[in-house]
Amino acid sequence: MLFQVGCELDYAAAVPSTLILNVHAQRGPTQTILSEQFSVEPRVKLTEFSVDDLTGNRFVRLETGAHKKLAIRYAAEVDCDFQTYRARAVEATPVAELVPSTIPYLFPSRYCQSDRLSRLAWDLFGSIENPHTKVVAVADWIHENVEYLRGSTNSMTSAFDTVTQRTGVCRDFSHLAIALCRALNIPARYFSGYAYELDPPDFHACFECFIGGSWVVLDATRLAHLNGLVRIGTGRDAADAAVASIFGKVSCTRMAVTCALGPGQTFKPIDHAQLNQRGVTLAQTS
Amino acid sequence: MLFQVGCELDYAAAVPSTLILNVHAQRGPTQTILSEQFSVEPRVKLTEFSVDDLTGNRFVRLETGAHKKLAIRYAAEVDCDFQTYRARAVEATPVAELVPSTIPYLFPSRYCQSDRLSRLAWDLFGSIENPHTKVVAVADWIHENVEYLRGSTNSMTSAFDTVTQRTGVCRDFSHLAIALCRALNIPARYFSGYAYELDPPDFHACFECFIGGSWVVLDATRLAHLNGLVRIGTGRDAADAAVASIFGKVSCTRMAVTCALGPGQTFKPIDHAQLNQRGVTLAQTS
Amino acid sequence: MLFQVGCELDYAAAVPSTLILNVHAQRGPTQTILSEQFSVEPRVKLTEFSVDDLTGNRFVRLETGAHKKLAIRYAAEVDCDFQTYRARAVEATPVAELVPSTIPYLFPSRYCQSDRLSRLAWDLFGSIENPHTKVVAVADWIHENVEYLRGSTNSMTSAFDTVTQRTGVCRDFSHLAIALCRALNIPARYFSGYAYELDPPDFHACFECFIGGSWVVLDATRLAHLNGLVRIGTGRDAADAAVASIFGKVSCTRMAVTCALGPGQTFKPIDHAQLNQRGVTLAQTS
Amino acid sequence: MLFQVGCELDYAAAVPSTLILNVHAQRGPTQTILSEQFSVEPRVKLTEFSVDDLTGNRFVRLETGAHKKLAIRYAAEVDCDFQTYRARAVEATPVAELVPSTIPYLFPSRYCQSDRLSRLAWDLFGSIENPHTKVVAVADWIHENVEYLRGSTNSMTSAFDTVTQRTGVCRDFSHLAIALCRALNIPARYFSGYAYELDPPDFHACFECFIGGSWVVLDATRLAHLNGLVRIGTGRDAADAAVASIFGKVSCTRMAVTCALGPGQTFKPIDHAQLNQRGVTLAQTS
Repeated sequence: MLFQVGCELDYAAAVPSTLILNVHAQRGPTQTILSEQFSVEPRVKLTEFSVDDLTGNRFVRLETGAHKKLAIRYAAEVDCDFQTYRARAVEATPVAELVPSTIPYLFPSRYCQSDRLSRLAWDLFGSIENPHTKVVAVADWIHENVEYLRGSTNSMTSAFDTVTQRTGVCRDFSHLAIALCRALNIPARYFSGYAYELDPPDFHACFECFIGGSWVVLDATRLAHLNGLVRIGTGRDAADAAVASIFGKVSCTRMAVTCALGPGQTFKPIDHAQLNQRGVTLAQTS
Repeated sequence: MLFQVGCELDYAAAVPSTLILNVHAQRGPTQTILSEQFSVEPRVKLTEFSVDDLTGNRFVRLETGAHKKLAIRYAAEVDCDFQTYRARAVEATPVAELVPSTIPYLFPSRYCQSDRLSRLAWDLFGSIENPHTKVVAVADWIHENVEYLRGSTNSMTSAFDTVTQRTGVCRDFSHLAIALCRALNIPARYFSGYAYELDPPDFHACFECFIGGSWVVLDATRLAHLNGLVRIGTGRDAADAAVASIFGKVSCTRMAVTCALGPGQTFKPIDHAQLNQRGVTLAQTS
Repeated sequence: MLFQVGCELDYAAAVPSTLILNVHAQRGPTQTILSEQFSVEPRVKLTEFSVDDLTGNRFVRLETGAHKKLAIRYAAEVDCDFQTYRARAVEATPVAELVPSTIPYLFPSRYCQSDRLSRLAWDLFGSIENPHTKVVAVADWIHENVEYLRGSTNSMTSAFDTVTQRTGVCRDFSHLAIALCRALNIPARYFSGYAYELDPPDFHACFECFIGGSWVVLDATRLAHLNGLVRIGTGRDAADAAVASIFGKVSCTRMAVTCALGPGQTFKPIDHAQLNQRGVTLAQTS
Repeated sequence: MLFQVGCELDYAAAVPSTLILNVHAQRGPTQTILSEQFSVEPRVKLTEFSVDDLTGNRFVRLETGAHKKLAIRYAAEVDCDFQTYRARAVEATPVAELVPSTIPYLFPSRYCQSDRLSRLAWDLFGSIENPHTKVVAVADWIHENVEYLRGSTNSMTSAFDTVTQRTGVCRDFSHLAIALCRALNIPARYFSGYAYELDPPDFHACFECFIGGSWVVLDATRLAHLNGLVRIGTGRDAADAAVASIFGKVSCTRMAVTCALGPGQTFKPIDHAQLNQRGVTLAQTS
């Protein structure tokens, strides 16, 4: 499935500052970038880098220098492939058999304090045997018990807050889902990306669980089509995959995000509800 | 400098469980393992693994199976090399010039909520120009304002708690130091290890800051000699480098940790206070 | 119903200190003290006082002076009267009709952050119309979802912690119940007292809700007979009714609490489960 | 000193709701109300009440009924008397000698978790002997270390947050001051009121400490003249003295607050800095 994604980000800098952006689509076995443009106006010093070989996140660091305003443009044509498989046939993987690279995603992180949600997670979901049924139950529970409410949370809100306060945005929904899955000994990680038909258009966050040997993607907000996602960031939580990390004094004055179908594509959405009925799920490899 | 390190850990398992241990000394350019023994009595299924190519942490995962008691023994002879250099000559590295592998250590983590300590950190240390003076000031401030008090904290205590409650153990001192350094845009990470002449003997935790192009080690507790450390774990915080992560129901019934000089060695300690006077510091490469 | 209650508290003082104790049974329309002894050995300066006309709490402040050890003894014979009435006939009282003295018990307090549990409370219990059914549902939910676990919490643990961590003791159960009731606009307060047949014997805490014009007593731990309680303290939470508040450096070296039937009494317990079936409840006036 | 105070509050109700307002000036030995008007347009059912005999807070409860908009107007002419006395001559009052009515103001409350700030308070201020010097040092420390920043906090922010995050408004400054004083065993309480020459005009919050047998008023924000305050609310913290507590769904659409001098008055401000130099302080009796 071919998507045309992109963003326009305008920033105002009060003092010379450094930004680290994470808006580039990832490259991976199931996600191919056919074409890509990235520009900053005016021209500033920039470095493209990754921080490890595992997550595939593509960061851009740029220095505002003396410039007061920056206009950042990104556009890419990305071919995404999703594996669909029969989820209900999958068996739980004990920690003793997990592949090592997934182990860090069992541990608590800044916004996903799985250590503090352990009892709650086991009380709610501990008796569910099938791992796919279990993580879907986590996503369903969040969808039913947390209200999507713009402005009700901020960049310091964590899963420990959300589980009680019960409002949030996609970031908060994902953090809570990740924390609950980790508390259940299921590796879970943060997925940030472009999302087709997300309304209103914006960057999106959802989460992945490692079950049946794959990272299966789920969305507790149910706002995105699971086969309509283009991966930008993979991480333990939003601390690893922020759209922009600012060092200095910079504010975002405008943001526009797009995610459209490529030419000649037709899209048959696979959504949360459907998945459950059909007992299948989706995985995308980073 | 040659050290003989080791530990004896006895565990009692109530149900079949999995343990992930992180007690092996790392291998690295400045830390060579001359000999090493690891045993579990009775014999159980175990896997040795690392989770990435960067930190060098050596994990062992073991399954208790039906066994109710496990006796774990580790012993190694390790040659540690420390680079000493004139710290005061070092200049601050702006975020714009940091090597990419250090960037993740700028972001907040489970126990080091640098995002919430930002103002405090800048108020206390923002005016100090020299990066070595700055991180030493962080360590000094913690040493003066936090009381080392066994039993006053637990595995859920974080830097945000410690900065106000002002008691803790080596883990808490390190988390607070890391959070403050990150808030000051200095990459900082957790260092767990064996420590020569630590009294009483135990695993130790301290922290490293990335200044002058090196990871410089510091200890806010001042309980360890900086050139008497043998590195076990490197991570964002204790979540990455726990001595033991338990999945199931297991309790530690006995723990003995040793760190002695190798044969024929003489030790001239380099401690926190000395470093300041001489304006030098230590770095060990992981 | 006649009870013989009492306590023996031994304290060791490291420095001259002040203690404020709250162990005396209250006097009130439904609780009469027939006889009472209070002694401190050796004799120290002490003041008996109350802080307001509303709660009826009887505090004793005592100064250790140079004494290193204090032995405190309290014993009383107390006649308690409970009103039983048909709870299901009671209608909800809107805030607009609450008697003013109950209004403060709608507001959040140190350990009962009702403001942060609002959504959760309404999601769980908002649809229950009958106020008695509603507060019983709160107590039932806590009983089912929080595990009574000695040592799992401390004096800083609050309802906001317990609602997620899901372990605690009578104090924590009560704080969570109070916070949830307040969030539902039902005045709720802390009740500390002696409890007949509490096992093991100890001071007990439960909670009261203002419904149908009375303060109805409930116990989310289900460890006490509701008609076996002798009231000591009434307050917003444990901060108002601590057994001992210490100013200085004092530790409790021994504590024994008793609550027995008076001579010739026979006791027919009224417990949580029974109340629900019979649709009655209990109130005791402070 | 004569003040003309008042407020205009417009509310929009989405559903029939109840409001509890606390905007009336108190009556007390040192504060006399010469004239007063209170109106709600349109006319709705309202009750004026107090919750105890101690604080003197005057609440109004009103029911919106079917009305969608309410216009509330309050105006009063108030004569305030302040006692000035030589503060430095005052000696510390040990807890053993405090008058009982002040004891509750030693205990932690919702927004003033003095129990968690104990060590910090003693480290910072424990060595100051004179109680007036001590509480002024608390106010000074907050003024120097916390930035007054509108919008940086919300109704859930507490002293435990502010002591680390170091931004807030008058409410947050007061909560932190109260928590620190209580941790130092000095009774401290919340003071809400009208403030002459507060810029921009608004309701104000400051705090009182019980020293030398009086409740001495202080303002960590330094935004108000200490002899320009007209008392509305007294309480443990903002939970006791909120301008408006809303039960239902109501939003404030407009708020205007005034505090002017009465006819023929001339005002000589007594401010924080002055007080320190002259070694005097102010008390107003509630």
